[in-house]
Amino acid sequence: MAKNITNPEKDYARWYQDVIREAELSDSAPVRGCMIIRPYGFAIWENIKASLDRSFKDTGHSNVYFPMLIPQSFFEKEAEHIEGFSPELAVVTYAGGKKLDEPLVLRPTSETMFNHMFSKWINSYRDLPMLLNQWANVILWEMRPRTFLRTTEFLWQEGHTAHANEKEAREEPLRMLHVYEDFARNVAAIPVIPGRKTEREKFAGAVDSYTIEAMMGNGWALQSGTSHYLGTNFAKAFNTMYLDSSNEQKYVHQSSWGVSTRLIGGVIMAHGDENGLRLPPRLAPVQVVIVPILKDASREETMRTAEKIASELKNLDIRVKLDAREGMSPGFKFNYWEVRGVPLRLEIGPRDIEEGYVMLSPRNNPGRDGKFKVPLDNVVNELPGLLDKIQEEMLNEATEKLNERTYTAESFEEFTKAIKERPGFYSVWWDGDTDDEIRLQQETKATVRCIPLDQTGGSGKCIMTGRETSVKVILARAY
Amino acid sequence: MAKNITNPEKDYARWYQDVIREAELSDSAPVRGCMIIRPYGFAIWENIKASLDRSFKDTGHSNVYFPMLIPQSFFEKEAEHIEGFSPELAVVTYAGGKKLDEPLVLRPTSETMFNHMFSKWINSYRDLPMLLNQWANVILWEMRPRTFLRTTEFLWQEGHTAHANEKEAREEPLRMLHVYEDFARNVAAIPVIPGRKTEREKFAGAVDSYTIEAMMGNGWALQSGTSHYLGTNFAKAFNTMYLDSSNEQKYVHQSSWGVSTRLIGGVIMAHGDENGLRLPPRLAPVQVVIVPILKDASREETMRTAEKIASELKNLDIRVKLDAREGMSPGFKFNYWEVRGVPLRLEIGPRDIEEGYVMLSPRNNPGRDGKFKVPLDNVVNELPGLLDKIQEEMLNEATEKLNERTYTAESFEEFTKAIKERPGFYSVWWDGDTDDEIRLQQETKATVRCIPLDQTGGSGKCIMTGRETSVKVILARAY
Repeated sequence: MAKNITNPEKDYARWYQDVIREAELSDSAPVRGCMIIRPYGFAIWENIKASLDRSFKDTGHSNVYFPMLIPQSFFEKEAEHIEGFSPELAVVTYAGGKKLDEPLVLRPTSETMFNHMFSKWINSYRDLPMLLNQWANVILWEMRPRTFLRTTEFLWQEGHTAHANEKEAREEPLRMLHVYEDFARNVAAIPVIPGRKTEREKFAGAVDSYTIEAMMGNGWALQSGTSHYLGTNFAKAFNTMYLDSSNEQKYVHQSSWGVSTRLIGGVIMAHGDENGLRLPPRLAPVQVVIVPILKDASREETMRTAEKIASELKNLDIRVKLDAREGMSPGFKFNYWEVRGVPLRLEIGPRDIEEGYVMLSPRNNPGRDGKFKVPLDNVVNELPGLLDKIQEEMLNEATEKLNERTYTAESFEEFTKAIKERPGFYSVWWDGDTDDEIRLQQETKATVRCIPLDQTGGSGKCIMTGRETSVKVILARAY
Repeated sequence: MAKNITNPEKDYARWYQDVIREAELSDSAPVRGCMIIRPYGFAIWENIKASLDRSFKDTGHSNVYFPMLIPQSFFEKEAEHIEGFSPELAVVTYAGGKKLDEPLVLRPTSETMFNHMFSKWINSYRDLPMLLNQWANVILWEMRPRTFLRTTEFLWQEGHTAHANEKEAREEPLRMLHVYEDFARNVAAIPVIPGRKTEREKFAGAVDSYTIEAMMGNGWALQSGTSHYLGTNFAKAFNTMYLDSSNEQKYVHQSSWGVSTRLIGGVIMAHGDENGLRLPPRLAPVQVVIVPILKDASREETMRTAEKIASELKNLDIRVKLDAREGMSPGFKFNYWEVRGVPLRLEIGPRDIEEGYVMLSPRNNPGRDGKFKVPLDNVVNELPGLLDKIQEEMLNEATEKLNERTYTAESFEEFTKAIKERPGFYSVWWDGDTDDEIRLQQETKATVRCIPLDQTGGSGKCIMTGRETSVKVILARAY
């Protein structure tokens, strides 16, 4: 057990904060609810961003930048939207040395700004589809902040698209949900359940909301990305019309979709263990750390060999760090990089060099003695494959955990008892309405996470209403 | 002359706005002074950012993210700093449904936040140097906004570093000024004059400020990047001390440096012409546009050939766009991409294919008839070299313009007359003080742009005071 890190079995919330502090991912800001993302934490975000941005561009989206300051009147245009957001807004009332005539809202999302511009830029069917995305900071006043998961300011991307027809606009949020799912599985090594949100849980202003739900180490769910079919709700509010090919004015159909820095929290909690962070290689800022075992007589030769390996790995585009810091023991360095979740440690000392080997120690080893030797001549060639193997193992491990902790329940009574004893995902028959969801949450603290897109078929009795239904949902406690 | 674009000789300010509109770089926002960066404009920023970010990382800097919201009290810690900024601040007074106890300022820079965290993170000489950078949006209330050049919200990067000794901290802003200069010359194809700012022009709170000054198409200067040696001013205000190797408590020495979206304005005005934007290949979102000449009988073959070239260029990492839009004439497309400054246009039609040639038309050609033929079999191989050649030609052209329009003046009277008749850079002897600079600006609208790092030697009489001096400065009107 790493010192300074609470055992996650004992206190998961403290474990989470301990890992963030010890791995130097974030620090608290002087304004409550805001966060400082430190270099190591930000490097994870940069990797998340680079991977998703590539996918957005490959699927035909362009990036834009829209203003942080939005006239208050914009929020009054779409009724449900303002109702959903108003308690969480931050408002500039004073600027440039005087009181403003109209207060300016700090964007909680840029939904209204995008719609304002869509109504200006879209005239004809030739302008469609318009597929835009923005990476930006947003502000949503948070009463119970938790680093990365719920913060007053966070970083995110918001995609906004406008389409000539409903079919295409309904497909877009599902297409982007698939991009998110693919990223979660194949880059973040987190298996997720893609599904639709219930009426109660959907985005303010959407017709349909979709989500990917991931399971954290304590069995809770993390909503890790969402996408929405907005219908013509915003088009009507902002009067966004286009001339179709038969010269008729029509409202555009729209979608929006986003992920945020909360994904960093998801990575911590999906993979972390009692020794700190564990990062999948494709996300890790440092994929391989080389710790040279330096002794006076052989210092130069050890460093020369370590530097040669580092430089050869760099040429293979592997993110490698040679930790040659003076005045720190190898043991100190092992812990330092273990807490930070570096997927693979490479130790090299005079005896190893003499024998023609290096010692490798994968962070994801089962137990703590997964060290093994690899011939010095082979190590550079073997490393890329080894990193792929670690990536795969981490996804497999997380998938097994998800499967193990996905339960079922036949009745509300059974569920109420079970979720207390065995937190996890519960796949249950469901035919409830918003009132049932409220009761569910009040009595069990669980919510309907999603209606999985992949329904298993068959039918059964809804655990709340007792009515026969063919719909299964996932219930869980959630961040 | 492109339609919809004012002749720059007639009205440079209108030409600038026309180019921004016609090339779809930016649009006005509903809040005065804020800007919307459209996909094509943002793609230029993404290329600027990617290039500089690589250089920052290569020189050992890490990225972080600090909060947008800063307690008002932070600004009162460094006296000169608050004086420099207070009229331009925007203030949040209301959030989460109620009035805030302490108003929160939207960052005009993150100087104070970085210093707050430095004082927490830095304890010993082992923590130094701390080399951080942030890419973020900032808000400075702007009374006379101009797209990209002066906007209430803009995007920028701000580097902040802390060092154990003065020598290293004095070198850092010069090292980063060199990174900026290198980017300007070799990526943006803009020759710049690196220099030191006068007492009057330096950053609020700095000991020394440095700048790179670029010449725009109308002979005005654009301050395109700045760096600062901050001494121990902020360290004392925030009590940032470290324990040195002999166990003594000492203040850190600091630097900061930044460039912003105003660089996009610089690119427009350094290279643009009467037909719109001209982009250097290394910055251009689209480096080569392929316009197929489509005729019914040969449409398929033409498209097949065009697609083959596009795909081969993509494999060489060339940013290529095949404009296969229907219902638009080749001439319309030529103008469309010319206004957008795409460095190279490739035309291909049935006759070309038959004869085994394609037609190339570089955007930077002298006059409008620089078209030439290249054998179809060769074009993919020749293109990378041709783009390098265009890049070089654009730098040469801008350098010639800078040299041609750099004048001198022996007296204030001569200068006053000359700058009116021939706007440009004036390299003059200077021994004036702040009062002289104020008088200079009041009478000529020109300012001291910088004291070039590269002094030519010799001495002469200051144009303001008549005193003998060995210092030359650059005077110009500036954005």
